[in-house]
Amino acid sequence: MKNINKLIDHTLLKPEATSDQVLKLCEEARLHDFASVMVNSSYVSLCKKELLHTDVKVATVIGFPLGACSTHTKLEEVRQALRDGANEFDMVLNIGKLKEGKLDEVTQEIIAIKEIVPEYVLKVIIETSLLSEQDKINACKCVTDAKAEFIKTSTGFSTHGATVEDVALLRKHVGKDVQVKASGGVRSYDDLVKMHEAGATRIGTSSGVSLMSTQ
Amino acid sequence: MKNINKLIDHTLLKPEATSDQVLKLCEEARLHDFASVMVNSSYVSLCKKELLHTDVKVATVIGFPLGACSTHTKLEEVRQALRDGANEFDMVLNIGKLKEGKLDEVTQEIIAIKEIVPEYVLKVIIETSLLSEQDKINACKCVTDAKAEFIKTSTGFSTHGATVEDVALLRKHVGKDVQVKASGGVRSYDDLVKMHEAGATRIGTSSGVSLMSTQ
Repeated sequence: MKNINKLIDHTLLKPEATSDQVLKLCEEARLHDFASVMVNSSYVSLCKKELLHTDVKVATVIGFPLGACSTHTKLEEVRQALRDGANEFDMVLNIGKLKEGKLDEVTQEIIAIKEIVPEYVLKVIIETSLLSEQDKINACKCVTDAKAEFIKTSTGFSTHGATVEDVALLRKHVGKDVQVKASGGVRSYDDLVKMHEAGATRIGTSSGVSLMSTQ
Repeated sequence: MKNINKLIDHTLLKPEATSDQVLKLCEEARLHDFASVMVNSSYVSLCKKELLHTDVKVATVIGFPLGACSTHTKLEEVRQALRDGANEFDMVLNIGKLKEGKLDEVTQEIIAIKEIVPEYVLKVIIETSLLSEQDKINACKCVTDAKAEFIKTSTGFSTHGATVEDVALLRKHVGKDVQVKASGGVRSYDDLVKMHEAGATRIGTSSGVSLMSTQ
């Protein structure tokens, strides 16, 4: 495969990450020309400064990793990240509401966030490890109806990450304008190729550098 | 021990929690007259409605569980929870900044939150499992300087929860006006007694009901 670097969101989301580790992440992302760096929202402004005049996006997470905070909190996290210079946004949908079948509420929350960032990429994390097959199909409908750019499998903080089966299932059930991002547990070039073949057009991984060296 | 019910924050923070599970949590808290129910911020208004005219507080988490979101996000999560009726607030401090030794930034964030809720209990989660002993002592200083009411060991979402040794260490290093809350992994009456003897005056647990029945 060619240009796999532009499939990769170079990811550092552990809560104890320091500024030095985030700076190293940015340096690696610049070197390999990854799609983005993916950081917690308190690090957006640092990354923006480091990645000025590069083609690497600054991506951040919203309502992460539980998705159970109030909608107001998610909206304000997006607004501040936008002010700080983020240009991709990976939100966690409200998993409890999804499981209760309150699909309109789930969809409306995504729409409200998308309205703040109409010109940027919004990815919606559904946390497949906590969902039944029907929940996953319902999530596909919510994300498609809300016109987000991506549906994303996992936070990396739950019981398991992306599987090939889930990526294929999501690809089958989202609308044609929605892309699929595989994240959580993608650590090797082989993993990446399998996820891509199943339909993922973006990969979230903290193993981007080692993965590039072993392709 | 007497009145252990009022030591207990009756806790349900898993991201897939549904309204029915939260309603059951409120019912149990009312029945046992626990100190509080502890829920994610999207459930504050539901709990407030359920617990009107009771002595059970509605507690919620802020910047949970990573503590790595922007300060603005934490402040807005507090403001919305306050509007929704919360009257206790368990925030996660910025763990990366603590580990870097940026203690003034950590303290200022806590102060900014405390200013919004001067009349309510603010607990500061430090996530002991990710900290060195010096980090823990530094966290005690930040929480004491910021005049929060409690320091709290754990989110329950990291590698381990409260230990007797950590509770004793925190009790030793926080100021006399700061209380210690033990949380994460406290599942039995024996656990609770040990934590209390080590200095904890509040216990966060999802096992409150079974714990009451076996005391």
